[in-house]
Amino acid sequence: MTHMMKAAIVHEFGRPLSIEEVPIPQPGPGEVLVKVAACGVCHTDLHAAAGDWPVKPTLPFIPGHEVVGTVAALGAGVSDLRIGEPVGVPWLHDACRACEHCETGWETLCENQHNTGYSVNGGFAEYVIASAPFAARLPAGVDFAEIAPILCAGVTTYKGLKETEARPGEWVAISGIGGLGHVGIQYAKAMGLNVVALDITPDKLDLARRDGADIAIDACASDAIQQVLDVTSGGAHGILVTAVSVPAFAQVLQMVRRRGTISLVGLPAGEFPTPIFDVVLKRITVRGSIVGTRRDLDEAVAFAAQGKVKSSVKTAPLEEINHIFEDMKAGKIEGRMVLDIDLA
Amino acid sequence: MTHMMKAAIVHEFGRPLSIEEVPIPQPGPGEVLVKVAACGVCHTDLHAAAGDWPVKPTLPFIPGHEVVGTVAALGAGVSDLRIGEPVGVPWLHDACRACEHCETGWETLCENQHNTGYSVNGGFAEYVIASAPFAARLPAGVDFAEIAPILCAGVTTYKGLKETEARPGEWVAISGIGGLGHVGIQYAKAMGLNVVALDITPDKLDLARRDGADIAIDACASDAIQQVLDVTSGGAHGILVTAVSVPAFAQVLQMVRRRGTISLVGLPAGEFPTPIFDVVLKRITVRGSIVGTRRDLDEAVAFAAQGKVKSSVKTAPLEEINHIFEDMKAGKIEGRMVLDIDLA
Amino acid sequence: MTHMMKAAIVHEFGRPLSIEEVPIPQPGPGEVLVKVAACGVCHTDLHAAAGDWPVKPTLPFIPGHEVVGTVAALGAGVSDLRIGEPVGVPWLHDACRACEHCETGWETLCENQHNTGYSVNGGFAEYVIASAPFAARLPAGVDFAEIAPILCAGVTTYKGLKETEARPGEWVAISGIGGLGHVGIQYAKAMGLNVVALDITPDKLDLARRDGADIAIDACASDAIQQVLDVTSGGAHGILVTAVSVPAFAQVLQMVRRRGTISLVGLPAGEFPTPIFDVVLKRITVRGSIVGTRRDLDEAVAFAAQGKVKSSVKTAPLEEINHIFEDMKAGKIEGRMVLDIDLA
Amino acid sequence: MTHMMKAAIVHEFGRPLSIEEVPIPQPGPGEVLVKVAACGVCHTDLHAAAGDWPVKPTLPFIPGHEVVGTVAALGAGVSDLRIGEPVGVPWLHDACRACEHCETGWETLCENQHNTGYSVNGGFAEYVIASAPFAARLPAGVDFAEIAPILCAGVTTYKGLKETEARPGEWVAISGIGGLGHVGIQYAKAMGLNVVALDITPDKLDLARRDGADIAIDACASDAIQQVLDVTSGGAHGILVTAVSVPAFAQVLQMVRRRGTISLVGLPAGEFPTPIFDVVLKRITVRGSIVGTRRDLDEAVAFAAQGKVKSSVKTAPLEEINHIFEDMKAGKIEGRMVLDIDLA
Ligand SMILES: [Zn+2]
Ligand SMILES: [Zn+2]
Ligand SMILES: [Zn+2]
Ligand SMILES: [Zn+2]
Ligand SMILES: [Zn+2]
Ligand SMILES: [Zn+2]
Ligand SMILES: [Zn+2]
Ligand SMILES: [Zn+2]
Repeated sequence: MTHMMKAAIVHEFGRPLSIEEVPIPQPGPGEVLVKVAACGVCHTDLHAAAGDWPVKPTLPFIPGHEVVGTVAALGAGVSDLRIGEPVGVPWLHDACRACEHCETGWETLCENQHNTGYSVNGGFAEYVIASAPFAARLPAGVDFAEIAPILCAGVTTYKGLKETEARPGEWVAISGIGGLGHVGIQYAKAMGLNVVALDITPDKLDLARRDGADIAIDACASDAIQQVLDVTSGGAHGILVTAVSVPAFAQVLQMVRRRGTISLVGLPAGEFPTPIFDVVLKRITVRGSIVGTRRDLDEAVAFAAQGKVKSSVKTAPLEEINHIFEDMKAGKIEGRMVLDIDLA
Repeated sequence: MTHMMKAAIVHEFGRPLSIEEVPIPQPGPGEVLVKVAACGVCHTDLHAAAGDWPVKPTLPFIPGHEVVGTVAALGAGVSDLRIGEPVGVPWLHDACRACEHCETGWETLCENQHNTGYSVNGGFAEYVIASAPFAARLPAGVDFAEIAPILCAGVTTYKGLKETEARPGEWVAISGIGGLGHVGIQYAKAMGLNVVALDITPDKLDLARRDGADIAIDACASDAIQQVLDVTSGGAHGILVTAVSVPAFAQVLQMVRRRGTISLVGLPAGEFPTPIFDVVLKRITVRGSIVGTRRDLDEAVAFAAQGKVKSSVKTAPLEEINHIFEDMKAGKIEGRMVLDIDLA
Repeated sequence: MTHMMKAAIVHEFGRPLSIEEVPIPQPGPGEVLVKVAACGVCHTDLHAAAGDWPVKPTLPFIPGHEVVGTVAALGAGVSDLRIGEPVGVPWLHDACRACEHCETGWETLCENQHNTGYSVNGGFAEYVIASAPFAARLPAGVDFAEIAPILCAGVTTYKGLKETEARPGEWVAISGIGGLGHVGIQYAKAMGLNVVALDITPDKLDLARRDGADIAIDACASDAIQQVLDVTSGGAHGILVTAVSVPAFAQVLQMVRRRGTISLVGLPAGEFPTPIFDVVLKRITVRGSIVGTRRDLDEAVAFAAQGKVKSSVKTAPLEEINHIFEDMKAGKIEGRMVLDIDLA
Repeated sequence: MTHMMKAAIVHEFGRPLSIEEVPIPQPGPGEVLVKVAACGVCHTDLHAAAGDWPVKPTLPFIPGHEVVGTVAALGAGVSDLRIGEPVGVPWLHDACRACEHCETGWETLCENQHNTGYSVNGGFAEYVIASAPFAARLPAGVDFAEIAPILCAGVTTYKGLKETEARPGEWVAISGIGGLGHVGIQYAKAMGLNVVALDITPDKLDLARRDGADIAIDACASDAIQQVLDVTSGGAHGILVTAVSVPAFAQVLQMVRRRGTISLVGLPAGEFPTPIFDVVLKRITVRGSIVGTRRDLDEAVAFAAQGKVKSSVKTAPLEEINHIFEDMKAGKIEGRMVLDIDLA
């Protein structure tokens, strides 16, 4: 192994990333070094590189949190991973393992967590450090580029669906059929749910149908709400809002069944106005959901490994990251872009 | 039994009620006639008499939905109630018993329900009709005036607390220590919960302490949020908002623990702005709750019958109803006013 | 309509049923008369006709509780069913609707229930009485013979699977692939579960594979337990035992995952020995499950109506009932026998 | 600190423990050294010292798993504990933290756990090693002798009660009012439950009443079952069996409410015969429960620290351990014996 690796680095918020040679990091106790095979590009990476959020990364840093590859070196005390084993490194890089949230399998709520590609370096690079107990175990023979988006987009929608508490045979509506929504449809079908897909472009609605939605409805149609009420006989039991906007939220509030749950994923700024009368009279639940726990990720990966969920991906070499960022900002990306680190 | 009874009747929205002699109603199949002993006066009665809500009662009508008394006559086919048995008639007068909500013990969400003192005549009268399967069974020897407010104020707060999903040993915060909040504190203590009470007047905070709150905090204090975070070591697991207002809601969002639930009872008009970032990152649940089911009411009554919950009541004769309404509008009522129908 | 109908009647326990003309019953208040189209034959019918259980039917009576047909006449006060509407009449003929179990959607536990074909006359006849609120609503155009077994075999296995609390993506094992088990496999797959089928005959294992089992294992194989532990990576999260026998129960206790649940359906006499050490150390849950509630039945029917579950049936005319009983006792029935009442 | 400590050591199964001077152990990475203040004596210690169970401790070893004291030294990498901080060391010494059970807050089911006083040395000594993330944090100023039994007896009963899923206001029956049962009563009351206590000696029944049981019933009375059915109006929602025996189990099966849960703690050998008919028809749940997780222990300690639960303890010096074992075998112990390590 040489001592240097290629990485895409943010030196200044809002400026293009720089592709450079930097030293390969060394795994500390309880950590492993991962040779990156592929890394998905997520909107959170855009926010990280732009310094959009209140708590910003410390410069310079390497983004990327849909990281998959193989174990290249073991830090002290790591006995349950082997060199060459396929692993993933998700947004939740590590957590304290001792707070009430970590103790109860809700480590995504730990106040002492580190986040990959944000507070610690991520996967837009040839190597990355993972915390051994938080690295996702991947099945042998997995297609790295295809599984990469499961690490964030996949588990986020899967967890969001679980949080609706909809049961097999019930209806979920998925609002927004982009990188999250199109895998959400597949998870929902694999979970035995009936699915209404909502979006505003014909292409996305076609994609939704191909991904298995029982019905795909133009959210801008004047009778969109009525269509959902009709097909679901009274409203969806669960609603997953992948792109929380004020109009989308106002609309789904009219589409949710009495006693139903609206699950919000995604992190736009701002507030959404919630009508008290409806929420109380219909016993509606509104709930936020953030990525997924280790267990959620194991389950999300298992569905994908069984072939029940497949993210639509395009690969590109690491050097293309700035173009990809431009295209994402312009809304030009279909499905998910994944950096194939061995390319180029 | 004579054929006439005294009742307080709304002939026109927003005008004083008229105390009149009207025919005693006859119970139909599956119904019973109840001789009213006492009837609590709830804010909903004010809204009903004022015609405040979109779907209004049909004039003329008799308000009152915290009705307690004894069975005076049985309609055809009623075999599980006896003459003289103590019963209560709650807001949920009857429901369809066959929809998905009725089938699953959520009849409060039935779209074909009737409401006492609103869509059917209520308990501001010497007699009222009840639907046999929806009449609450009361323990022998119960104090009618004391139990009356359990029929609405009691069960509403009890159910709202259940809906927070807080478990014994965890913390709930109760925002607003009025007619609902002061019984809510007692239910929470009886449920093994630790209680933070929040209000803005010293009198209400004193009442909260007497009712068993572990700590009572002035919601206007500049460090109110910090006090709650400190005493609960990170925020309340559940929050019951008895008086939903925009500032109260904004405040409790800062007081709720990660993964906690805010339960809203009460039906003000309007919307409350919900901050997406916090709700998602902390996995907060916001949930409406409306009165309680038959089972909830049985449980709420049992706590009261055991002496664990006691509503603070003052009694007055039926003829005082218009004065009571005036005092309620002026915010002059402490605890709950209950019409003692045998007085006068 | 003539006043007489054909029916198969038990006059004496353990003797052949007698096919006779008897008066068509009249629906009372809240009841409907159902023109029977088809009626499945269940093992419980055998027990009923033999007088096997402690509380026996009152002689003479008409068995049959997987009844489907159309509404032929409405009793007084029935407003939510129409003449000609397709309905089903399940084992749970009616319940009190006011006890704690009825109030909470667990009417199958009501102590004042009546059972079709047991304490009230059943569907081995041209007409049967149903209680309007307990009659199952069937989709228009349903195939009566195919849907009949859902009324008991279907809902029983569906409910039993729900009671395992296994979630989509987890493993269930189904022990016994007869009339119950073969629909259980289909429900489990529709619910997003992975399925191990266990039986002791090659034919049944083949049937299990055709019905979608991920793996079918010979329960008599010396390595049967190890096979289950291997394929499930540690044991099944849920186990449905459709034929509770001492050896079957002893075996599945070694196949259940730590924290898993064994759900028992079926009503053999006797006791099964439960090993304390395993149950405690592995936190195993053992739970009985009996038929299903109205809501469970609605859900079970919906899966069948969607084509996701299909019972394997053979039809025969009512006159064949005694031959069918003989074949059932001899274990000669494949799938489910359904009486087609219009035949003959 | 000297280098030697006093300890009670098992050199041979079934022989008296030897009080000796042995080297103080050194904490490894992630571990702490705890100066023992007190250690409760549990029946499991008897089984350990006798080598009663299939998987035996490796000789020689130090028993004791209700250990409390203060942190005396920190191993490498421990940053969240401080010297002098009060901590507890429970039966669950450590677990793998990465299996599906550890990931979901069920580390008590981890197949790679170590157990204090069994597979690693325990607290019948002046010092003991704890795993930092598994050491229980105790409140400042706690009474060590009083809190010690919470580490095993307390958390075991508390968890067992949680596992009944009985809710505040419902009834639990607690069978066996010994070291486990008498704290179980207190936990149940603190959880808002109504409590029936069952035992066969008047002394224990008196103790149960003093500990807050709503009713204490002689389990040998011919009408014991009927008394429970009467006072609970139909059977207990939850039953905690602290001393699983065949007759006790057979009895509580007749005392459990329809849809109720029987929770078994304790580890006798053997099997209990479970009647299928009752379990199925009444939808009874039988569930094992083993100690409690870290979170359960935090909660159990918090109830005790609030003064809501108090174990009845007697203290003795370490040198008395063999006499205590003799008394325990003879059934002569009232409440809990706790070794006060500073005595003598
Ligand atoms: Zn943490
Ligand atoms: Zn992401
Ligand atoms: Zn009210
Ligand atoms: Zn309804
Ligand atoms: Zn059947
Ligand atoms: Zn009932
Ligand atoms: Zn112990
Ligand atoms: Zn583990």
